[in-house]
Formats: sequence, structure tokens, C-alpha cells
Amino acid sequence: MSFLERVTACQQWDPADYRPFVVAGQAVGRIDEGFASLLADHAPTFAVSDRAVELDPALGDFESRSAAVAAVLEKLREAGEVPGWRDEPYPVVRTWGDPPLLQVERASVPRFGVRGFGVHLNGIVEGSGSESPEDLEMWVGRRALTKPTGPGKLDHIAAGGQPHGIGIQENMIKECEEEAAIPRALAERLQPVGIVSYRCARAEGLRDDVLFCFDLALPSDFEPRNTDGEVDAFYRWPITEVMRVIRETEDFKFNCALVVIDFLVRRGIMQPDDPEYSAILQGLRLST
Amino acid sequence: MSFLERVTACQQWDPADYRPFVVAGQAVGRIDEGFASLLADHAPTFAVSDRAVELDPALGDFESRSAAVAAVLEKLREAGEVPGWRDEPYPVVRTWGDPPLLQVERASVPRFGVRGFGVHLNGIVEGSGSESPEDLEMWVGRRALTKPTGPGKLDHIAAGGQPHGIGIQENMIKECEEEAAIPRALAERLQPVGIVSYRCARAEGLRDDVLFCFDLALPSDFEPRNTDGEVDAFYRWPITEVMRVIRETEDFKFNCALVVIDFLVRRGIMQPDDPEYSAILQGLRLST
Repeated sequence: MSFLERVTACQQWDPADYRPFVVAGQAVGRIDEGFASLLADHAPTFAVSDRAVELDPALGDFESRSAAVAAVLEKLREAGEVPGWRDEPYPVVRTWGDPPLLQVERASVPRFGVRGFGVHLNGIVEGSGSESPEDLEMWVGRRALTKPTGPGKLDHIAAGGQPHGIGIQENMIKECEEEAAIPRALAERLQPVGIVSYRCARAEGLRDDVLFCFDLALPSDFEPRNTDGEVDAFYRWPITEVMRVIRETEDFKFNCALVVIDFLVRRGIMQPDDPEYSAILQGLRLST
Repeated sequence: MSFLERVTACQQWDPADYRPFVVAGQAVGRIDEGFASLLADHAPTFAVSDRAVELDPALGDFESRSAAVAAVLEKLREAGEVPGWRDEPYPVVRTWGDPPLLQVERASVPRFGVRGFGVHLNGIVEGSGSESPEDLEMWVGRRALTKPTGPGKLDHIAAGGQPHGIGIQENMIKECEEEAAIPRALAERLQPVGIVSYRCARAEGLRDDVLFCFDLALPSDFEPRNTDGEVDAFYRWPITEVMRVIRETEDFKFNCALVVIDFLVRRGIMQPDDPEYSAILQGLRLST
């Protein structure tokens, strides 16, 4: 699969399959037929019509909305309708930094089709000052088989969801410590480098994600070590091998491929005269 | 003006002011009332209706379309209706790399509202291995007062439009030589780093541009020198001074500010916890 095909694979969804999820007069998500019919049993918290799913407008603030939705989700969870429950509250917000309208359990984020936010780190080992891609290596992790999404898939050395109540950069540093035992003093050298965004229909629902991306140059003698049970193994590969695996296999978690492609663009490993360059770049950052 | 305001200033246009410019069944541009009424006098090359301006579908290939449009533009030029004539043919194409449907004189690109392509170089001088923004400098050029667009404005050390028939990277290297006398061997070290895109109404028409961006680390003792008369002066400023001038003045050419903001993002000088971060990133790359 070409890099462009990897990118467009993350933009596959059919607007006709969803109705807007409306909170306080704002469309903040997209809900499919199946989840809408489950929510229809939970009036007045949810008002389900053919045109929209609306959260009870009488719920006037963050706390009351969050509590009412949590009560419904708890019942759906008991009925086995919210697989992969994490006990992690995620903010419902279209743009990070805006005040969230409510918070919901992480596992329900793609069911409501609300925006998810994450942090991803390109952990690299740079060669002896050469600009050649052959001298550039990237650390890759294999996700534990117990992960609710993408078990056994290849991933970044450190990555995670962005929960409510912690800064983005601080969260990335925390993931570095937990997932790869990167000491804080080293992790603090990471460089924020932008975002990648996509919207696609997946088994877990509609993923409408913004990933904050970071690069960190690791010393040649650093060896990552997982401390939270979420990573089974780490590999240090030449970037050319990472590129081959993305092109030729389905081994990488779908969204990690995008973050790596963004890295290849920023590092000049992809060339603007490549006829797919513009389409790849546009596809890496979906407009709202 | 905040960085976000600089970005959104480049996304200001009203779809109601334009009708599609249709070539071979494809909407490839947007034409305003004034230009449409000029083209209406040139049937059958242009068929102007309230809903669209269509190029004569009997013109079946690149050559015949380009020749027919050139003949009309020549008459409009004689009537003073195409200011800033350059004698530079530009390809009409939505995505760079696709076969162009025709080519048109550069000065008419914003009148037809077809996509324009350009190359911009961030010419930087890196400090003594420090990651601090204070140790990073950027070369800035002041555009000659004779330039048809943005005379006297601040610009990159080298930048230019992307004409038909030359590779993007080769064009950037050529601009380095012409605008700043950067020797080819040095210019060839430039690194492609992505694109910035925007669509906005300007005095010259609708700018719907994709800029290919490059970074080049210049030696501390390098001094640019203009050779084509398009640059009046060069300045080497700390990046913090470049940032201040973008925020506090209107001195930079509108689109150069975007390329610099993209640079600040990629270099980690902008922080993801900045509440405007996501909106700036989305705004730097307009979806088609």
C-alpha cells in the first residue's frame, strides 16, 4: 500500500451512516444507527430523532452533563454495549483548549463520534551527522496482546490518549516514562512538531482524532523498557525498514503510520516532486 | 495580530462572490463578477452563465485550450485588464503532479481563481548546538519596490512561483541562486519540509495557493546577495525578532508569515499547550 493509500485509508467514512450528536446546540460528534437506537431507550437524557441525537438541553453545565451521560453509559456497560471500558474520562471538545462541554468514558468516544486527542512520539537515533536516511533509526514498540485496540500491532516507542486535566506536553513526557522508561530529564528534550488528524470508521466506531506529534533524539546507548505492561517488545529499525513495513504489511497500527509519514515529510525523506506529495500532505491534516 | 489571526487572515473569502471556472467538466477555479463579465464578451471560448464560467468544451487538449485562452488574455491585456503581466505560463491543475488541463499567464491565475503553486525557503543560521530559539536566526529579504505583488514587503531569503516544466526542488534551488546568490552546492543541502496552503481574496483576485516549503541551514559566514533585481536588502534576525515583526507589524508579505509559523511549529518553538495550536495547524493546510 502506498503512503497515500495509508493516508486515505484513515479518511474513510460515510456521512450518511451518522447523525449529529448535539450538545448545548453544538454538533460535537457523529452517532451511527446502532448506538442511536441504544440511546433512544434513555430519554430524557438523550433525545433521538432521525435527524440528530441531542443531549437533554436542561443539562446546563459540565458536571450535570457528565453525570447524566455516565449514568447511561454505566447501564450500557452492564449490558455489554461499551467494550474496552477504561475508566478514563475524556473531554468532549472540538478544539483542544476550548472549555469541554462534558466528559465521557474513553471507550465511548468513538461511539459518540466525538473528537479524540492523543500524543505520539517519534523516538529516533540519529547517525553520525549524516543526512542520509540510512543513518537514521526509529524505535518501534509492539503493543501488548491485552490492549483493547490494535493488540499486537506496531506502535511508536511511546504514545497514548490525551485525557482531561493534564497538559499535552506533560502527558507525552508521562507516557515516555510509563511506556518506555525514558527518564524525565531525557524525555523533556522532546520537541513538539505539529499535529496529524483523520476521521475514519473503525470497528470501535468513528475515530475523529487529532494527534499531537513529538520527536525525540535518543542516545545511541539508550534501551527502552516497558513499565506499564502495554508494550511487549521494542525494536530499533533503520527508517528505511520502518518505511518498508508501512508499505508492505498491515503490522503498524493504522494511525501510527500517519505520524511516521508526517515525520518522513518533515525530515525531507519524502520529496515534493513525488506526484503524491501534495495529496499526502493535505490528507495528514483533515479540516474540521 | 496573533499567529492564529495571521493564519485566518489568509482564509478570508466569500464563496458567494465567485462562480466555478469549469474546464473539461472539472471545476478548477473561481471567477468573480468583474472578470466573468469581461470573459462574457469572448464567446465561444468562454460560456458565461449565472452559475459558471465554462471553457469551450470543443477545446479538447492542453495546446488548444492554452492557445484559445492566451488569445483572449492578450486582448484583455491590451485593454489594461490583466495588470502585472509576467510572460510566465502557469499550469492549471488542482493537484501538483496531475497532468495540467491548460496553461495561463501567471498574472491571470488569481483572476481565474485557479490554484497557484510556489516555493519558499526558510534560510536559517543555527547557533552553537543550542536548542534555544534565541540562538536561531533567519535571513529575511525585502522585496524590490518594482515587484507587482507585495512591493517593499518582507519575504523569505528565496521564494518564487512554481512554473510549468521544472521540478519543484530544482525550481527552489534556482531561486536560491537568482535571489540570494546561494551557490548550488550549498542550496542542494536544502530540506523539503512540507506544504502550506490557503485561499483568500486579495486585490489581485482569489489566491488559492499551495506553497512547497524548504529549510536550509546556512553557514554563519554566508552573506546573501541579490542577482535578479527582485530583492532590495537582506537582514539576518533572531527568530524571536522575526516572530515579533509578524505579530506587531504588517511588514511581512501575507503568505510568508504562514511559512514562518509552520517553521515555528516544526521546530518546537510553538507549544501544543498553546490554546491556539490546533487551530493554527489546521489553518496552515487548507483541505481541497
